[in-house]
Amino acid sequence: MKGKFITIEGLDGAGKSTQINYMKSYLEKKGFKVLLTREPGGTNIGEKIRDIVLDKAHAEMDSVTEALLYAASRAQHVSQVIMPALTRGEIVLCDRFVDSSMVYQGRGRNLGFDAVKAVNDFATRGLEPNLTLLFNINPDTSLKRINERGPGDRLEEEKPQFHFSVHKAYMDLAQRFTNRIKVINASQGIEDIRKEVEDILEKLIKEGEIHEVSNRNCT
Amino acid sequence: MKGKFITIEGLDGAGKSTQINYMKSYLEKKGFKVLLTREPGGTNIGEKIRDIVLDKAHAEMDSVTEALLYAASRAQHVSQVIMPALTRGEIVLCDRFVDSSMVYQGRGRNLGFDAVKAVNDFATRGLEPNLTLLFNINPDTSLKRINERGPGDRLEEEKPQFHFSVHKAYMDLAQRFTNRIKVINASQGIEDIRKEVEDILEKLIKEGEIHEVSNRNCT
Repeated sequence: MKGKFITIEGLDGAGKSTQINYMKSYLEKKGFKVLLTREPGGTNIGEKIRDIVLDKAHAEMDSVTEALLYAASRAQHVSQVIMPALTRGEIVLCDRFVDSSMVYQGRGRNLGFDAVKAVNDFATRGLEPNLTLLFNINPDTSLKRINERGPGDRLEEEKPQFHFSVHKAYMDLAQRFTNRIKVINASQGIEDIRKEVEDILEKLIKEGEIHEVSNRNCT
Repeated sequence: MKGKFITIEGLDGAGKSTQINYMKSYLEKKGFKVLLTREPGGTNIGEKIRDIVLDKAHAEMDSVTEALLYAASRAQHVSQVIMPALTRGEIVLCDRFVDSSMVYQGRGRNLGFDAVKAVNDFATRGLEPNLTLLFNINPDTSLKRINERGPGDRLEEEKPQFHFSVHKAYMDLAQRFTNRIKVINASQGIEDIRKEVEDILEKLIKEGEIHEVSNRNCT
């Protein structure tokens, strides 16, 4: 079996961490070897880049710098972790990927979808997810949950308008990539969400609908 | 007077540091306000990125990651240091800029001139130097001088073939951007090089041949 690449997206507070762990257990029970990883980070070099990006002392960080740091972390993650696992035939579950950059930097920071996509195609050498689960919650709910967690990092402390803009951008992406992105209603209870996600995974496994892994070299 | 942006390029060991200090003194004597800066680095965030790139413990660093980290450092440098100084009307002398990425990553790492240029156009928001002085020495001389300095960083310890490839790439760039890049014979004695550089600066100042600063927004 060739590996499959599944990414998980959505606003902070949408319950991604809980569900991604459920997904791992579910897929392992079905007999798949699963690698769970996250962005930004996922590698030693990536964690160091993550520390720079999220440090609240870096208030002077330019939005272009931020987008390039995320892309750098991702490049390392793809080459060192994701591609080797896919080559070994594993299912890779990745908490955030290029879509996060498109919505947070492309739209939230006004750098533009296309410019951010181009930089990320360079970073990933053209690798795209076979499936993306977008956990959709109301941006108000996201903000409420973030605030309940106490003081956050540099990105979590953005103004409400930023979160609304990012939510809208996620919905736009879902409309643009209907084949790859499945929108999950993450306002439901945890068990209902779990059921919805498992139904999608079961259907895709049965029907073999998860696309083949693509890996174009962009140079 | 509007600011002017001058970059200094060449292999390690070509004597750039010595000459850039001479250039600063010369231009200041002529009455210009001069900002001397360097890449990678030049900002607090950039220095932290520089530490990641040059750390010898990061042998696993992917070449795409490396190129994106240089671009990220540059984006911060341009927005926080270079553009504000040019706006104030100063002359900015910058030790390495986009040309370094094109030769070291584009050619040395085989990522391609065009891919690296595209990422850097995003990073610089389209800012280009008015003048680039390329200090040209034989790659053998460069290697000999680097070795005399003792153990170097991750990039300096590349194999000889890497340095030859980078030297050839610099020559190719000089042919591609004849308007902007002036090649200096850096195999001469220090005072002879100084004289050659000052002649170029004097001529450009007198004739007003240094181009106007361009700043296109690439998004």
